[in-house]
Amino acid sequence: MDRVDGRKPGQLRPVLITKNYIKHAEGSVLIEAGNTRVICTATIEDKVPPFLKGSGKGWVTAEYGMLPRATGTRNPREAARGKIGGRTHEIQRLIGRSLRSVIELAAIGERTVLLDCDVIQADGGTRTASITGAFVALAEALDKLKKQGLIRRVPLTDFIAATSVGRLDGEILLDLCYEEDSAAEVDMNVVMTGGGRFVEVQGTGEEASFTRQEMNDMIELATQGIQQLVACQKESLGGIL
Amino acid sequence: MDRVDGRKPGQLRPVLITKNYIKHAEGSVLIEAGNTRVICTATIEDKVPPFLKGSGKGWVTAEYGMLPRATGTRNPREAARGKIGGRTHEIQRLIGRSLRSVIELAAIGERTVLLDCDVIQADGGTRTASITGAFVALAEALDKLKKQGLIRRVPLTDFIAATSVGRLDGEILLDLCYEEDSAAEVDMNVVMTGGGRFVEVQGTGEEASFTRQEMNDMIELATQGIQQLVACQKESLGGIL
Amino acid sequence: MDRVDGRKPGQLRPVLITKNYIKHAEGSVLIEAGNTRVICTATIEDKVPPFLKGSGKGWVTAEYGMLPRATGTRNPREAARGKIGGRTHEIQRLIGRSLRSVIELAAIGERTVLLDCDVIQADGGTRTASITGAFVALAEALDKLKKQGLIRRVPLTDFIAATSVGRLDGEILLDLCYEEDSAAEVDMNVVMTGGGRFVEVQGTGEEASFTRQEMNDMIELATQGIQQLVACQKESLGGIL
Amino acid sequence: MDRVDGRKPGQLRPVLITKNYIKHAEGSVLIEAGNTRVICTATIEDKVPPFLKGSGKGWVTAEYGMLPRATGTRNPREAARGKIGGRTHEIQRLIGRSLRSVIELAAIGERTVLLDCDVIQADGGTRTASITGAFVALAEALDKLKKQGLIRRVPLTDFIAATSVGRLDGEILLDLCYEEDSAAEVDMNVVMTGGGRFVEVQGTGEEASFTRQEMNDMIELATQGIQQLVACQKESLGGIL
Amino acid sequence: MDRVDGRKPGQLRPVLITKNYIKHAEGSVLIEAGNTRVICTATIEDKVPPFLKGSGKGWVTAEYGMLPRATGTRNPREAARGKIGGRTHEIQRLIGRSLRSVIELAAIGERTVLLDCDVIQADGGTRTASITGAFVALAEALDKLKKQGLIRRVPLTDFIAATSVGRLDGEILLDLCYEEDSAAEVDMNVVMTGGGRFVEVQGTGEEASFTRQEMNDMIELATQGIQQLVACQKESLGGIL
Amino acid sequence: MDRVDGRKPGQLRPVLITKNYIKHAEGSVLIEAGNTRVICTATIEDKVPPFLKGSGKGWVTAEYGMLPRATGTRNPREAARGKIGGRTHEIQRLIGRSLRSVIELAAIGERTVLLDCDVIQADGGTRTASITGAFVALAEALDKLKKQGLIRRVPLTDFIAATSVGRLDGEILLDLCYEEDSAAEVDMNVVMTGGGRFVEVQGTGEEASFTRQEMNDMIELATQGIQQLVACQKESLGGIL
Repeated sequence: MDRVDGRKPGQLRPVLITKNYIKHAEGSVLIEAGNTRVICTATIEDKVPPFLKGSGKGWVTAEYGMLPRATGTRNPREAARGKIGGRTHEIQRLIGRSLRSVIELAAIGERTVLLDCDVIQADGGTRTASITGAFVALAEALDKLKKQGLIRRVPLTDFIAATSVGRLDGEILLDLCYEEDSAAEVDMNVVMTGGGRFVEVQGTGEEASFTRQEMNDMIELATQGIQQLVACQKESLGGIL
Repeated sequence: MDRVDGRKPGQLRPVLITKNYIKHAEGSVLIEAGNTRVICTATIEDKVPPFLKGSGKGWVTAEYGMLPRATGTRNPREAARGKIGGRTHEIQRLIGRSLRSVIELAAIGERTVLLDCDVIQADGGTRTASITGAFVALAEALDKLKKQGLIRRVPLTDFIAATSVGRLDGEILLDLCYEEDSAAEVDMNVVMTGGGRFVEVQGTGEEASFTRQEMNDMIELATQGIQQLVACQKESLGGIL
Repeated sequence: MDRVDGRKPGQLRPVLITKNYIKHAEGSVLIEAGNTRVICTATIEDKVPPFLKGSGKGWVTAEYGMLPRATGTRNPREAARGKIGGRTHEIQRLIGRSLRSVIELAAIGERTVLLDCDVIQADGGTRTASITGAFVALAEALDKLKKQGLIRRVPLTDFIAATSVGRLDGEILLDLCYEEDSAAEVDMNVVMTGGGRFVEVQGTGEEASFTRQEMNDMIELATQGIQQLVACQKESLGGIL
Repeated sequence: MDRVDGRKPGQLRPVLITKNYIKHAEGSVLIEAGNTRVICTATIEDKVPPFLKGSGKGWVTAEYGMLPRATGTRNPREAARGKIGGRTHEIQRLIGRSLRSVIELAAIGERTVLLDCDVIQADGGTRTASITGAFVALAEALDKLKKQGLIRRVPLTDFIAATSVGRLDGEILLDLCYEEDSAAEVDMNVVMTGGGRFVEVQGTGEEASFTRQEMNDMIELATQGIQQLVACQKESLGGIL
Repeated sequence: MDRVDGRKPGQLRPVLITKNYIKHAEGSVLIEAGNTRVICTATIEDKVPPFLKGSGKGWVTAEYGMLPRATGTRNPREAARGKIGGRTHEIQRLIGRSLRSVIELAAIGERTVLLDCDVIQADGGTRTASITGAFVALAEALDKLKKQGLIRRVPLTDFIAATSVGRLDGEILLDLCYEEDSAAEVDMNVVMTGGGRFVEVQGTGEEASFTRQEMNDMIELATQGIQQLVACQKESLGGIL
Repeated sequence: MDRVDGRKPGQLRPVLITKNYIKHAEGSVLIEAGNTRVICTATIEDKVPPFLKGSGKGWVTAEYGMLPRATGTRNPREAARGKIGGRTHEIQRLIGRSLRSVIELAAIGERTVLLDCDVIQADGGTRTASITGAFVALAEALDKLKKQGLIRRVPLTDFIAATSVGRLDGEILLDLCYEEDSAAEVDMNVVMTGGGRFVEVQGTGEEASFTRQEMNDMIELATQGIQQLVACQKESLGGIL
């Protein structure tokens, strides 16, 4: 049986990465995964969090947001509600951790790269698209530092990308769109390097549970999807990495 | 002497209005005025503020935001700072007032049209571009209500658009870009109907002042600019209005 | 036809300026315009905002507040609501900008003059009364600095005062009281120097618009009113300026 | 040895109560105790807190504030800091409790009387002046209710007033001004009815302690001071009570 | 090589569950896992979140906190900082989801069971101890509802417990204490039912990654640990389940 | 007539002080007074508030909290409500002031001792139990400083303890439990040194008042109770003081 948008169970949505999307940022992309669209910008700041001062090491961190009408029903602005919600916190911590796993922080000196991931249209998988897109913006920003002679090389040890898998009506599906995600019994986000090592595995049953075999099947499908995403990143970055 | 971007004193930047930019919204446009780019979405809600309950009248209101890296230097998110700043408040009140001046609120029933104006790239004139773009999103959303048979006609009494004028090194200029705006001695935002009536005139001298003659000259230039913006809106909206 | 309080269209309300109203402040006045009463105090601080550090220049800024029962219906305290509203932000930015237009910031050194304008009884025109009164408090505080030998002269380049004008039932009126203001179709605040130069012109039609001719008439009436207010300030300040 | 302002140890500062100070409020006074000046307004609302709904009983509550420059050194606004401080909370709870001890809440029906006490100039004893002044504003507001025929009598069972006492350099003093209060080893606030019954006794040693005898002496002096304050209230209220 | 506290790689810390720890709560336990101590209370409220009103279904949710000095270095209170941090949000969402996976929400009617998990002493694994302890408090509270005749049976479909595993110096360890957790390259939390089904798997490499084989080994060890924790829960609950 | 828990009017509830309750803290006790249980920890920080910097003197301050289900009905967390309530502010200021009255701040150098008092089960008298327990934690922490050779002696000038007294149905009672406290007409908290000097006396009539004789009787009863509490502290501290 085909999926709501006609895909096969193991098929990703079309991915499009547009570089240099925001002229002011040190790195910026618009990443589109099906109808999900996220603007990722990289900002380089000549400072680090207090715990790194004097260490000679840099930092990578992320913030995540969503325009109020990125979704089918309008979401009130977090700025208007006066605080950042729990879901936003979880996502921005996840993006930051993921990117830090493939960068040599000592090689960028006492600088922070801040990745802003802003969803302008949402259709499922916004956090994984953010990671995949933010990696490209990060690479661009580091390449700019290199071109300015501030660092000697682009100190990324590998590619990193992410996708979701889930169980819907008992079937394991790759890269869930919003309609699938809402109905899924189990949802798993996987962040993986170009070399096939895991950085983050988050599998969740909401009022449901899953077996060891299902976990293995989900991991397998995610691995295949991420290899394709890394291929898109490579093509987009050209000779940078 | 030509301006920083080669324009004549009375020349607008190129304006581009892309309709149906966000698939979820009842109305949505991407408006580009030079390098300034704003996403305007219209959301229709079946409720009104408390002071209108039972009145049979509707309401139009607006919210305004800016992505952190829309600007040359990154701006912290208002959500992270936990509150909406004074400038944001001023702008969203201005957008709402301006749009309400050309709609018959009684004709839309007890509904609220909420315009979200989110700047994804800023280069001066974001508030006036927001007004000009939000008007088109509003018209589209009302047209959708009409097509659904919920209202009989699109109850807009006129077009409305906005631009800035200012005095820079003693010369009066139309539609200031960021570099000009930062250096201007006097800055004036004008909101005007298609029929040439004023809805809002806000002239400000920051550590400076201006004469009656200069005010007249600024008003004159703004009037010409707004007529061109209204022509763009007409073309974009086609037969809706 | 006479106005609600018997005034002529172009007539100001009685204005009374009481100096040295609060013993602790470097400058302080109680300004009364009809039933509107505002306490304006000037505080001199030996510091400047970060963007001026090391510049040798000073700063002038303002805060605005209203006692809960200054109005006919009690307004909850902004402190209790945990934030400053959009209207308050607009007003305090307006007061600050207005005063900065007539002071030579370089002549006061790296000091900030903070003007607190607190409305103890409101009857329309609280922001314009705040500007008119705050100017006197500012002049007093600068005079005190001069007397202490900390500055050589009172570095004010001109007087500055403000009033409102509006259109009510088609007629142009000066200095609207609350009852008139609530019913006005168009409301305009004008800030002007003693020499007749504009610093701020804010004309607003709430669900209404106005013609070029009406704008001219409003400007004319405001100009006359402000000349009278400046005369009151002069009398109050005596030989200081 | 005389006190800093020349008073005897057991002497109150001059007290002045000006009624009808704010035209909009149901009751309002300016109370002056030496250089301390507080505006107290009473607002009557036709609602009660949730725990009293349907009980037929009313409520009396209070809020307290201080203008930023009421003090020698400017205090930042609580609204700007986004929250009400601990000291303010303590004081407004104290004022509310004190007034509720002399009113028959069942006799005012399901109404709330909200007392706003705003200090416009501070010189010690602002909380006790607030209680003494708020009582008069409360009585006035209740008298207005009576005159409107909404209640049959002014349901106050007694007068209530407050003062401070303290120990300074070993000597017991009545009604401390700010300079004395800052240096006092022990500070006590006493709230007492016209009939001489205690409603609140708060004695505090900051990094100090006091004996039973000293407590008795402070209580004695406070009792005498409060009798004089009640006399002022009586004179001010005339035939109301 | 033995671990810092002398345990074998696959050995849990001693677990102690004290029931009826807080007399006011419908269910309450003190759970101790080594030096980690958490008070878990269950509160039953006769209401549900808005999205469940009228559905006949109940809800289970959780809140998590930590006393300031539960840790080696004092942590400022979240109440004092005015907001709940991202880590707290993540944990309380995790606890709630986990418990909801083993309860039939329709069987408790429109009631909410709120689990408060407060860490009074922390030594690693506070979130997993919270889940393990909260399950017992939840079972107790449901048993109380049954005894009151409000529900017919305790509608739990299985036990649920949680533990952590991680990789430290290349070795896979069960139930990390704080010192181990701080140094671990990979950290994984696993939530599992008594029947061996996964509810949540969260594996994270902070500036590190892990292979498929390592993931399998971690899952295996966690499964063994959770079986022992479920045995403790069974003993503690006696005949309830 | 006996009291709700069978005590005589002048009888304290059983008091139990468990030292070294939290392993991470410099000082820590669990104090139990009847069913009221409070964890008090002392944290020593090598810094002082700004007003003491460079003075050579230290500081003692306190924070107070209550677990949500410490009470019969669950109280929402202050962290979730985003601010600390007025009652909490009052209590933590009281605890800090009380402890500061018996310590020589100059003798601890520029250090702050922060006492956290967290109520895990509440049954009346939580603030007075906090003071009594916090004193023991403070003494322990100072003793640790002495043993580390950082101070020469434990610079406490006396013991300090606190209890409540009140009037219920006209009778004066010592150490009110929650049920008594809720019904009391007058409530008084007394903080006193081991030597019988007062540090704090807070008597409050909620919608009631009290005579001079009643005040004397309450003071007398509190004095007796505090002597017994100090005896418990002495036994608990052994040779430290």
